[in-house]
Amino acid sequence: MCRWLSYRGDPVFLEEYLFDQDHSLIVQSLQARKAVTTTNGDGFGVGWYGTRPEPGLFREILPAWNDSNLKTLAHHIESSLFFAHVRASTGTATTRSNCHPFALGRWMFMHNGQIGGFERIRRRFENALSDDMYRHRGGTTDSEAMFLHFMEGLNDNGPKESLEAMIRRVLDLLERDGIDDPFRMTVAISDGATLYAARYSTDDRPPSLYYRQRSNDVLVVSEPLDDRHHSWVMLPPGSFLACDAAGDITVKALSV
Amino acid sequence: MCRWLSYRGDPVFLEEYLFDQDHSLIVQSLQARKAVTTTNGDGFGVGWYGTRPEPGLFREILPAWNDSNLKTLAHHIESSLFFAHVRASTGTATTRSNCHPFALGRWMFMHNGQIGGFERIRRRFENALSDDMYRHRGGTTDSEAMFLHFMEGLNDNGPKESLEAMIRRVLDLLERDGIDDPFRMTVAISDGATLYAARYSTDDRPPSLYYRQRSNDVLVVSEPLDDRHHSWVMLPPGSFLACDAAGDITVKALSV
Amino acid sequence: MCRWLSYRGDPVFLEEYLFDQDHSLIVQSLQARKAVTTTNGDGFGVGWYGTRPEPGLFREILPAWNDSNLKTLAHHIESSLFFAHVRASTGTATTRSNCHPFALGRWMFMHNGQIGGFERIRRRFENALSDDMYRHRGGTTDSEAMFLHFMEGLNDNGPKESLEAMIRRVLDLLERDGIDDPFRMTVAISDGATLYAARYSTDDRPPSLYYRQRSNDVLVVSEPLDDRHHSWVMLPPGSFLACDAAGDITVKALSV
Amino acid sequence: MCRWLSYRGDPVFLEEYLFDQDHSLIVQSLQARKAVTTTNGDGFGVGWYGTRPEPGLFREILPAWNDSNLKTLAHHIESSLFFAHVRASTGTATTRSNCHPFALGRWMFMHNGQIGGFERIRRRFENALSDDMYRHRGGTTDSEAMFLHFMEGLNDNGPKESLEAMIRRVLDLLERDGIDDPFRMTVAISDGATLYAARYSTDDRPPSLYYRQRSNDVLVVSEPLDDRHHSWVMLPPGSFLACDAAGDITVKALSV
Repeated sequence: MCRWLSYRGDPVFLEEYLFDQDHSLIVQSLQARKAVTTTNGDGFGVGWYGTRPEPGLFREILPAWNDSNLKTLAHHIESSLFFAHVRASTGTATTRSNCHPFALGRWMFMHNGQIGGFERIRRRFENALSDDMYRHRGGTTDSEAMFLHFMEGLNDNGPKESLEAMIRRVLDLLERDGIDDPFRMTVAISDGATLYAARYSTDDRPPSLYYRQRSNDVLVVSEPLDDRHHSWVMLPPGSFLACDAAGDITVKALSV
Repeated sequence: MCRWLSYRGDPVFLEEYLFDQDHSLIVQSLQARKAVTTTNGDGFGVGWYGTRPEPGLFREILPAWNDSNLKTLAHHIESSLFFAHVRASTGTATTRSNCHPFALGRWMFMHNGQIGGFERIRRRFENALSDDMYRHRGGTTDSEAMFLHFMEGLNDNGPKESLEAMIRRVLDLLERDGIDDPFRMTVAISDGATLYAARYSTDDRPPSLYYRQRSNDVLVVSEPLDDRHHSWVMLPPGSFLACDAAGDITVKALSV
Repeated sequence: MCRWLSYRGDPVFLEEYLFDQDHSLIVQSLQARKAVTTTNGDGFGVGWYGTRPEPGLFREILPAWNDSNLKTLAHHIESSLFFAHVRASTGTATTRSNCHPFALGRWMFMHNGQIGGFERIRRRFENALSDDMYRHRGGTTDSEAMFLHFMEGLNDNGPKESLEAMIRRVLDLLERDGIDDPFRMTVAISDGATLYAARYSTDDRPPSLYYRQRSNDVLVVSEPLDDRHHSWVMLPPGSFLACDAAGDITVKALSV
Repeated sequence: MCRWLSYRGDPVFLEEYLFDQDHSLIVQSLQARKAVTTTNGDGFGVGWYGTRPEPGLFREILPAWNDSNLKTLAHHIESSLFFAHVRASTGTATTRSNCHPFALGRWMFMHNGQIGGFERIRRRFENALSDDMYRHRGGTTDSEAMFLHFMEGLNDNGPKESLEAMIRRVLDLLERDGIDDPFRMTVAISDGATLYAARYSTDDRPPSLYYRQRSNDVLVVSEPLDDRHHSWVMLPPGSFLACDAAGDITVKALSV
């Protein structure tokens, strides 16, 4: 399990939400409240949109809480759309390739959760990718494989449909192998213009996901960044959120 | 604050105490019970005596709990006298040079605690070293500086006297600068034959330190490795322990 | 391209061949003579057999020439059968999972060379593994995939036949896709008893490979460790070498 | 010995000079032409001025040539005044604290060269710092100590005078200890407005240093970034260069 944060709004320095909050993502890296694991120290990553169409990426295998480079980069990089992720490995190695966010072209993706029994469907799940997409496989996480399937689906569909197709493919493989372990996930996705997020689980324990809208600024986060509980809205399980460039939010049910 | 473990006895694989205990040092790296900080993820180190007179050292800036190299080394390296340390930085950088244990010749040293107000006495404390010793300064921790003063003192004294001289020097500098912050420490020291340990504080809150004697095998640890509380003895504050090659333990009062 | 070294003989400290030779592997990491790339600084690894049936592994993403841990481990670890490898990436990421040697059970494997056009056959090559073997895929190199195919082949064959089957599988996939890029390799393999090595290429430029036999001690290396040229024998292209526990060497032609 | 690059001019992406030149700094990290060591793989760093008065810093212990984060950061960060440095250790550890540039407040500094016999004057050189400055000592290099002395001198002097005072202090210490080893250096310094550089040696073999002025853009570099030799001017030994915000360059003799 991991913790993540995504932001869309007026340009801010990354440190505003990574560091300068009572329960900032850095605090969560040491003391997550709403996750199975309280420590998220198996690498981290940030991705941000700036003047380039594709996002910048900074991923590191060290814990986020004490990384000198993260501190200075978050102090200097401004963005109006960015992701940040602190990782608690569910078994895969701590390599940069296994750290979130993942990016391809102008798209960016990060994930929290787990495909239960992933090791038993991994080969078939990966082999279902096209050669074109397969060559972007750089690590071994279920997360990155989910991202590549999502990207492949964009050839035919919009983001919501592509995400649903990816989920259905996982469900198919789990069913075929008779795997009962739960498939739980939250994801954040962006093309540099719209911020998408989703929350899903095959059982009644989806990972936590919240959002906050304040004038033009929208945050979607694994956990609230402070104790002002009334300002944070929990995204219902099975939901897909889209936040456009105007800061308008729409929430729809996932159709899987 | 950090957590550490030292062992003297029949040869064992390091993993026996680093990994294979209910509350092993690796468990403590994520969930220390008796420390101010529960997470000890800012680097780690092991040092062991083998066929060479000087100890082997393996120090790394990653968290201990997920390091693939630590796992395989602890599975393969056997020793009858070894140290292991998981670090929670009190401000200094996470570099290998700041990780414990420290070694010089056949001596090895590790530390938990803090010299309160160290930054204000640091220059004078370091400058009091000889040029010969000063060139071994590789990091910026109070711990390594304490070690080098201890080593310098060995020219004239035995280990206990040298440790006491080091403590007195710190007390002098703190007093001269009117620093009231507490000086708290536990240390483990060895020359490859005897295992020494000490527990000390200027206030009534010294870091925890325990030992266990079982046939030939002696452990001195920051925290018990299991819940069999009766088998672990708390070392009294202000004490200096020596465990010789026969496994015999003597405990004396520090004279500072 | 990379450089590697394997040893079988009387127990020696690893540093003897990694550091203490005129043209040691560490010197080769900075200044290889017989390789396309002179710098081999994209990670390294050592694997050694000791008291356990399976080998110990130490792999790191830093350059070998300045790694403090490699220095102390090579000074302290003795073995009568060990591998060491310095890596020059041909494109894949510098992660520990992509560093050699690879190990599974009591088997160990390392590789120099490249499957030309690997990216175009990668998915099919990996998918041809069984689920059992596939779950050990930790990185993205052709080397590790070759190792897993070799391991899979051991179910039905000895090491030579299994290596040949792996090579044939690669040739089949390259042919099917009309890939003309050369497939060049040297490998070292061991089960903890016998040291195997092979040299192969589809063109006339196989990577260099040499061996030296001196009383009981056998070295198989990418490059000679010194300038006494007469003491090093070049392994002919298309050959498979086996060095048994008595230090006896047999060389046979690969049958692919 | 190391290689470095500094830029002042119209905003450019860092990659323009770090990557996109025939003999870019990244090429120099593998194949320096005008340095004693051809490989500069013991860490690297970049520092840049953006919207903050103080510079951003990114320093890493991996080689620059294959670092995924450097690649993406250099692709995304724009600056009109930045430094970059690839390191070849002359003995000190490969830690981030020993990597260049160094920064304090709005000042930034990087260095190539060596104080011969530094280990013998190190304690006295460091102890001559004020406590205020001493607490910024994070590593063990002569470079960082030189920077802190330079910073201390700014209390009373301008940059040129402060650099000269630092050099004189080194010369004094070397003379007092009868050390004949050469003291050679090139440095780049900035306060975010002006780019300063200097080249100095006690013997006739100062490290190489060149600059190029093209419309508003000024580069000061250890080695030319391409083979158009006529466009690069060698800075004479014993010189101090200042490039102001208008891109005007003045070169004066160092007075030591």
